[in-house]
Amino acid sequence: MPDKNKIDSWISSRKKRLDSLNAEELYPQILNGDKQALSSAITLIESQSIENHVEARSLIEKCISINRKSWRIGITGVPGVGKSTFIEAFGKIVLESGHKLAVLAIDPSSNVSGGSILGDKTRMNWLSKQDNAFIRPTATGGNLGGVARNSRDALLLCEASGYDVIFLETVGVGQSETMVHDMVDYFLLLMLAGAGDELQGMKRGIMELADTLLITKADSGNEKKSEMARREYANAVHLFPPKSSQWVTNVIATSSVSGLGLKEAWKNVENYFNQIMLNGFYEANRLSQNSKFLKSNLSGLVLSEIENNSNLKQYIQKLEMDIKEGHISITSAVENLYKAYKDSIK
Amino acid sequence: MPDKNKIDSWISSRKKRLDSLNAEELYPQILNGDKQALSSAITLIESQSIENHVEARSLIEKCISINRKSWRIGITGVPGVGKSTFIEAFGKIVLESGHKLAVLAIDPSSNVSGGSILGDKTRMNWLSKQDNAFIRPTATGGNLGGVARNSRDALLLCEASGYDVIFLETVGVGQSETMVHDMVDYFLLLMLAGAGDELQGMKRGIMELADTLLITKADSGNEKKSEMARREYANAVHLFPPKSSQWVTNVIATSSVSGLGLKEAWKNVENYFNQIMLNGFYEANRLSQNSKFLKSNLSGLVLSEIENNSNLKQYIQKLEMDIKEGHISITSAVENLYKAYKDSIK
Repeated sequence: MPDKNKIDSWISSRKKRLDSLNAEELYPQILNGDKQALSSAITLIESQSIENHVEARSLIEKCISINRKSWRIGITGVPGVGKSTFIEAFGKIVLESGHKLAVLAIDPSSNVSGGSILGDKTRMNWLSKQDNAFIRPTATGGNLGGVARNSRDALLLCEASGYDVIFLETVGVGQSETMVHDMVDYFLLLMLAGAGDELQGMKRGIMELADTLLITKADSGNEKKSEMARREYANAVHLFPPKSSQWVTNVIATSSVSGLGLKEAWKNVENYFNQIMLNGFYEANRLSQNSKFLKSNLSGLVLSEIENNSNLKQYIQKLEMDIKEGHISITSAVENLYKAYKDSIK
Repeated sequence: MPDKNKIDSWISSRKKRLDSLNAEELYPQILNGDKQALSSAITLIESQSIENHVEARSLIEKCISINRKSWRIGITGVPGVGKSTFIEAFGKIVLESGHKLAVLAIDPSSNVSGGSILGDKTRMNWLSKQDNAFIRPTATGGNLGGVARNSRDALLLCEASGYDVIFLETVGVGQSETMVHDMVDYFLLLMLAGAGDELQGMKRGIMELADTLLITKADSGNEKKSEMARREYANAVHLFPPKSSQWVTNVIATSSVSGLGLKEAWKNVENYFNQIMLNGFYEANRLSQNSKFLKSNLSGLVLSEIENNSNLKQYIQKLEMDIKEGHISITSAVENLYKAYKDSIK
């Protein structure tokens, strides 16, 4: 049984620690690559308190002003595909190539907190001990919009701290893939060879997001099956619509145990970034991602403002009953609600 | 080569026809079940012209006031799964059970117009000739929000015209499934037995939306494979999270050629509606669908208002450049944009 006193003291020390965080102090430490400061800064942006929110905003504004760039890489795949072992093995190659690597893990379905960092460090044991690697889950409030905002800010903090390769890892079972895809330059989909693929969540829509499909676990007698799957998928991806990056989705079979295909996979990433830097997609894509994020955040803001206004909330309930009774169409209800909303902010 | 004069005269006669449409005249004809009037009314709601828009709104308000209810059934599945032949054969059973059936086809990826009704009538040859059946594609403006609004209005018109069973058919390759799911009481997913399922777009997310999975084409030597697939999926759906309708997703193997499973599938629909009428889900679900639609339409309205305001549009471009240069974070940009938007409507 957990000791209540211990928990209380942990909570209060954590709160004190949060309260003492401020942008002025954290900023130079982050620029210097101090991992503890970076970690605290991410805790700060994830905090729900208003005072912390102000400090967090100020910190982010400072960090973006230095405009350090990174390769943002999305990694997804259903549970069991071997994401952690892949990231551990692949990350080693990234570090050996002279990069600094940050791994941000996102799981919108679970409510991870600061405590689960330990879990992440355990699952990437070697990587978590390296000077040039930083591993961190993104705490979620259960709400995808919030996750997106926190993840974006965490990305910016890591970039300011000098990480030039960032993995945004997400568990491939929900809407989070699209969200992550909208935040990265390159999207990697891990897949298992073999039966039951229709239950892997590998719908065509998500496959089409991928820049590279990686077949994992091509080892322990699985080599032949993986090579067959690789060919099958390589045929399939040719049918996909062309990407505006002009990159053609490819398929690589890998083993995080034997190391098969991992160097090839990293070479592939380098080729990709060379190509999109040259053809302008890197810049164009980020611009369009920002624009999309700007608009979706704005509608989120409008909706939350409406939901926090008790008069409007009551009015919505009335409209909903009117719709139900057939007194008004939804389209007219929307127009009425919009009028009421405008009146409320005049 | 098409005759230009013929086309011009067709366009001008169509325009004249549209201009002469008005709610006052159409309404009693629709209530009487006049198919030509219903068809014209749907053309009216799909029209982009402002005058037509006013008539369309007035017609919809009249139609909802009589508050006729139907069973709204979503049907989806990737191209090649046999949707048309299924709807033709299944529709026959619906009519034989004494219902009036409307089939609204939605394909947000194509730009169907009034002209393609002919195409739809050809692909459901028998059904299109029946007195108690009405078949109609929904014209799209390429924009999913517009499709959703038109489809909803078309639903309401069909209900006012006495159709008590409505199929909303969508091609299962995009986001349209979720949209249709948010408009119907019951969601049917058609699937093919056999290999390559991972390319059928059958991602778990969409499978989880389904109330019933229908294996199609269980004929011509395919019977055994279909029965195996049925069992496999029946095992899989048990792992899905429980639905708030308390309905447990089931799997039925069918053949539109031999008729296998079709009566069972309709009996299944009847059982479903009996259950959700009794346990309150029918009402509760529609209320929550309306509420969701109300909110998403409202944010759509705000965004389109912003995009139609040239000052705000310029401001967005400036903000996007500032984000790119690292002068401002997206979060601050959103806040600034929201302030500017509020100022613009004061």
